[in-house]
Amino acid sequence: MAKTRLGKGKYGQKIADATVGRLSRYYRTLKQLESLGVITVSSDELARRNNVTSAQVRKDFSFFGAFGKRGLGYNVRDLKQNIAQILGLTTEWHLALVGVGNIGRALLNFRQFQEQNFFFTLLLDSDPRKIGSRFSTLEVKNLDHLEEEVKKAHVEIAVLAVPVEAAQKVAESLVAAGIKAILNFAPTTLHVPPDVIVRNENMVIEIEHLSFALSQ
Amino acid sequence: MAKTRLGKGKYGQKIADATVGRLSRYYRTLKQLESLGVITVSSDELARRNNVTSAQVRKDFSFFGAFGKRGLGYNVRDLKQNIAQILGLTTEWHLALVGVGNIGRALLNFRQFQEQNFFFTLLLDSDPRKIGSRFSTLEVKNLDHLEEEVKKAHVEIAVLAVPVEAAQKVAESLVAAGIKAILNFAPTTLHVPPDVIVRNENMVIEIEHLSFALSQ
Repeated sequence: MAKTRLGKGKYGQKIADATVGRLSRYYRTLKQLESLGVITVSSDELARRNNVTSAQVRKDFSFFGAFGKRGLGYNVRDLKQNIAQILGLTTEWHLALVGVGNIGRALLNFRQFQEQNFFFTLLLDSDPRKIGSRFSTLEVKNLDHLEEEVKKAHVEIAVLAVPVEAAQKVAESLVAAGIKAILNFAPTTLHVPPDVIVRNENMVIEIEHLSFALSQ
Repeated sequence: MAKTRLGKGKYGQKIADATVGRLSRYYRTLKQLESLGVITVSSDELARRNNVTSAQVRKDFSFFGAFGKRGLGYNVRDLKQNIAQILGLTTEWHLALVGVGNIGRALLNFRQFQEQNFFFTLLLDSDPRKIGSRFSTLEVKNLDHLEEEVKKAHVEIAVLAVPVEAAQKVAESLVAAGIKAILNFAPTTLHVPPDVIVRNENMVIEIEHLSFALSQ
């Protein structure tokens, strides 16, 4: 969250975090439009539905080459497919859930991950009462065996839902096991090597934005 | 997420969203330091623990007046107290949870909200099987009675955890009931009047940042 990470566009330009976030939102809008039977959509309509300007929409798409024709709008299905490709949603991703507490268990039941091709294939916890128990079809494995379990389950992305005190140590184990992408729910800044990407989900920070605004 | 919202600093300057987010993180660091018995902290140390520069730390604090003395660092307890005041954490906030599904129930058990003075005082759902059932000490109320229940429970902040199809309509009911701050977990852009603040928690967007990066 502190630094802007950059990916690469079709012509080698840098793609900012914020652009990637907007692509995710356009993708969701396009899915919705497709399910309603809509064939083409204008940048104005995409903009309106996502609270951005249509210039922003066109700029975001220009990073990946022009998908639309002037005056004709964008073909919903093609644009959706293009964005899916860019966001890596045409591949199946394997997730490890580290920490099978309240938040972790909620995530296991979170249909939207599966709908977007993200599947939990490994559960890890350090609590002896949880190790060996099952959630949906998965057995909770011992956190002490993180490295071998991560390799066995072909995990690419780790979802970190452990208490804040344990987070940095677990992150280091994940890095040692070869994990390059972490979705972190622990309210702390993880220190990882530069080739590892961390995204932070911090519900407390979000709600504090609200209390801040209400206090002004 | 699309637009930068601005609050006001001590001298009337605008405070960007990103600054508020960093204040939340400094606050967490200070709490941790205080629990370790640390009396003073340098901007360097606060910066290191939050992956920002110390110039950034000093700039963030300057919005609210200088809390530290050059060379002496900041008093941990005073700084923590100052930030708590700015973020509105010295007041108790009452939350309504709208949608008592998986995510909603996880949030009810999320200790960190209570630790920061955010308390659920109202649960609302439209599912007849849920209405009347209890979670911890609260009974689930009928979503149809949103307006009167929100007023009865003195709710200031609504946590929206309903399916995407229902989100906009529920948001409008919340606005009609006088709610000015919404934490939205539905993966859609809510359209609300300008005096209502929405923060979006979108775990799918976060994880798609990771799949994007891994696909490059």
